[in-house]
Amino acid sequence: MPVNLVAPDPSSLYPVAGLELGTARAGIRKPGRRDLLLGRLAPGATVAGVFTRNRFCAAPVRVCREHLAAGRGVRAWVVNTGNANAGTGENGLAAARATCASVAALLGVEVAQVLPFSTGVILEPLPLERLVAGLPAARDDLHAARWAEAAEAIMTTDTLPKAASRRVSVGGREVTVTGIAKGAGMIRPNMATMLAFVATDAAVPQPVLERWVREAADASFNRITIDGDTSTNDSFVLAATGASDVAVASEASPGAAALKAAVIEVSRELAQAIVRDGEGATKFITIAVEGAGTPAEAAAVAYAVAHSPLVKTAFFASDPNLGRILAAIGYAGIDDLDPSRIDLWLGDVHVATLGGRHPAYQEADGQRVMRQAEIGVRIALGRGAAGTTVWTCDLSHDYVSINADYRS
Amino acid sequence: MPVNLVAPDPSSLYPVAGLELGTARAGIRKPGRRDLLLGRLAPGATVAGVFTRNRFCAAPVRVCREHLAAGRGVRAWVVNTGNANAGTGENGLAAARATCASVAALLGVEVAQVLPFSTGVILEPLPLERLVAGLPAARDDLHAARWAEAAEAIMTTDTLPKAASRRVSVGGREVTVTGIAKGAGMIRPNMATMLAFVATDAAVPQPVLERWVREAADASFNRITIDGDTSTNDSFVLAATGASDVAVASEASPGAAALKAAVIEVSRELAQAIVRDGEGATKFITIAVEGAGTPAEAAAVAYAVAHSPLVKTAFFASDPNLGRILAAIGYAGIDDLDPSRIDLWLGDVHVATLGGRHPAYQEADGQRVMRQAEIGVRIALGRGAAGTTVWTCDLSHDYVSINADYRS
Repeated sequence: MPVNLVAPDPSSLYPVAGLELGTARAGIRKPGRRDLLLGRLAPGATVAGVFTRNRFCAAPVRVCREHLAAGRGVRAWVVNTGNANAGTGENGLAAARATCASVAALLGVEVAQVLPFSTGVILEPLPLERLVAGLPAARDDLHAARWAEAAEAIMTTDTLPKAASRRVSVGGREVTVTGIAKGAGMIRPNMATMLAFVATDAAVPQPVLERWVREAADASFNRITIDGDTSTNDSFVLAATGASDVAVASEASPGAAALKAAVIEVSRELAQAIVRDGEGATKFITIAVEGAGTPAEAAAVAYAVAHSPLVKTAFFASDPNLGRILAAIGYAGIDDLDPSRIDLWLGDVHVATLGGRHPAYQEADGQRVMRQAEIGVRIALGRGAAGTTVWTCDLSHDYVSINADYRS
Repeated sequence: MPVNLVAPDPSSLYPVAGLELGTARAGIRKPGRRDLLLGRLAPGATVAGVFTRNRFCAAPVRVCREHLAAGRGVRAWVVNTGNANAGTGENGLAAARATCASVAALLGVEVAQVLPFSTGVILEPLPLERLVAGLPAARDDLHAARWAEAAEAIMTTDTLPKAASRRVSVGGREVTVTGIAKGAGMIRPNMATMLAFVATDAAVPQPVLERWVREAADASFNRITIDGDTSTNDSFVLAATGASDVAVASEASPGAAALKAAVIEVSRELAQAIVRDGEGATKFITIAVEGAGTPAEAAAVAYAVAHSPLVKTAFFASDPNLGRILAAIGYAGIDDLDPSRIDLWLGDVHVATLGGRHPAYQEADGQRVMRQAEIGVRIALGRGAAGTTVWTCDLSHDYVSINADYRS
């Protein structure tokens, strides 16, 4: 049951001029499921991406990096679900390249202008023939108003499609930012989440877009975790088609800040939607760390708490077993941490101070907060001025069921 | 359901001359439960310990470190379950000191000769009065043949008591090594496990004992993980009473190697028993990493695999979803890892090679191994000569149930 998340209303997803999307049912893993997404970009679009830091990265991630580095521009992307094409060795790499070649031939673009993405089971050969056979139907479906279907086509164990859209004024003219993402499990992005695509119809120069995709990832997908497992396929791509005739020449241009803010807002909404629909999630938890000596220290503490199975099961049970949070802070790796300087709040309730329970803390107050579907944890370390915020979910019976049954 | 573990037969636990144990029902957390353990050591015993590296360490851990550093010798230890006396600030420290003072008065020893240990819920005040009121009954129960009751008295969510015993010949004379441990959850020891006590009736000089307790911890408790949560209370204590009149003067003495091996064997049996009885465990998993560049690299890979919730749920489901193991290897933090040099075996089945699926691998072979209760994972990194072995268990519905209900 996703936490305060509903399927996006298709009419709320503004088309992005210069980008057409088309989907098909290719039967990659299971028949009858929308599992193939094709995207076609207008000539002259700029595209930047960030990818998983998992060393066992998938074949399509390697090909994406190569094609972006080639600098021939991007004219198309192709996404399949049902198979990650990861842990597939040289055959997998050849299959990803063959996918790009098929798309290039179909759309009349160069092979190096196609970006491939896969998500699904690892260590299984990609069913290339079925994927290629599905491409013409996806091409025939290409249309600017296909964001809702696209969000559905990239789902795996997601229970709901994830999409977000904004309109923002740039130099007095309106431009659009729309994006989709998929998540659910193997989520502890270290660069970007499993798959996310955000596009705007403004024109944005390549170097600016490359900075923005990193900033947006750091403010969104790089701040979420479900199970601490960094995927082999994480990819986050930002495209600027320029089809609106509104151009942002540099970060100092009028409206550039507003456009960047809209990109970050859309990315963050998608990232939080991934957590809300995390495998088995029943709670949406915001962990804010302040008073850290460095940003890395803040992140270490936030992720230690966010990854602790004991903390996550306590949230699932609505049990204010807050000593588990203190224990996780204690093993986060800060060697000279002074427990007596730590303060801990659960929602608005001051739980711990001076290395122990706050004198005014009542279990009933902790219980009241723990019963909510959206819970804030605030940790003050008393060491410095750095901080961070991480979003995560609880660990429930359904997480175990989903992952014990995923392939069956 | 513990994995291939039964309650120890009391007759298999050899008494250690020079150490008496006594238990009592003090009602620390729940009435009627054996929850207090007292140990009395003969004068002249040497004792060494290793303790949690969690910075939020419990009050008794701080007092243990102080008392060992004072060098007055150890004459007694006292253990309570039901309350960890962690996250309890200055009051908790005072309660741990008061516990030692009561034991010292009761047994006629110095306060600094008493080591206190606690395990249970964090962030709750220690019920000192009930603990102290239970001490006389524990003292009246003191006897050398109480290892089975002692193993029971230190349990929390453990479903079975854990004890191991060996007799070994040192210089032609027999000496005994017996130990007990408790585990179950919040288990990723970073020094020693939650609580373990091993004793021998041989005489071992303090500096030798201090090296041995570290070596034994590194070969046993520091190689297990259940949920990756390093506890606030981890303590592992090794005592040598000398009551057998067999003395090991140095590590070069006759029989020293045999005695050290027996200490390590007992420690390892206890550590593995903790994993076998891990919260919700249905599988006992041995993860062996070889071909690493450094021991730290080997440990990083072994623990990434051992902690991955996706790997652990796949083991629970007997699902050979082995791509999840490759993904965990990939995010273990080795920046220059070359996936094409990795080999992976599940039991005797060669699963992956050259960065992909082994050509001869059949799903049915993986399935056959996954159905077993004891599973070996072997990972060859192809980078060097270092390696390590880590023991862990799967992640089941019962883990979630136990930790969602622990305090209720």
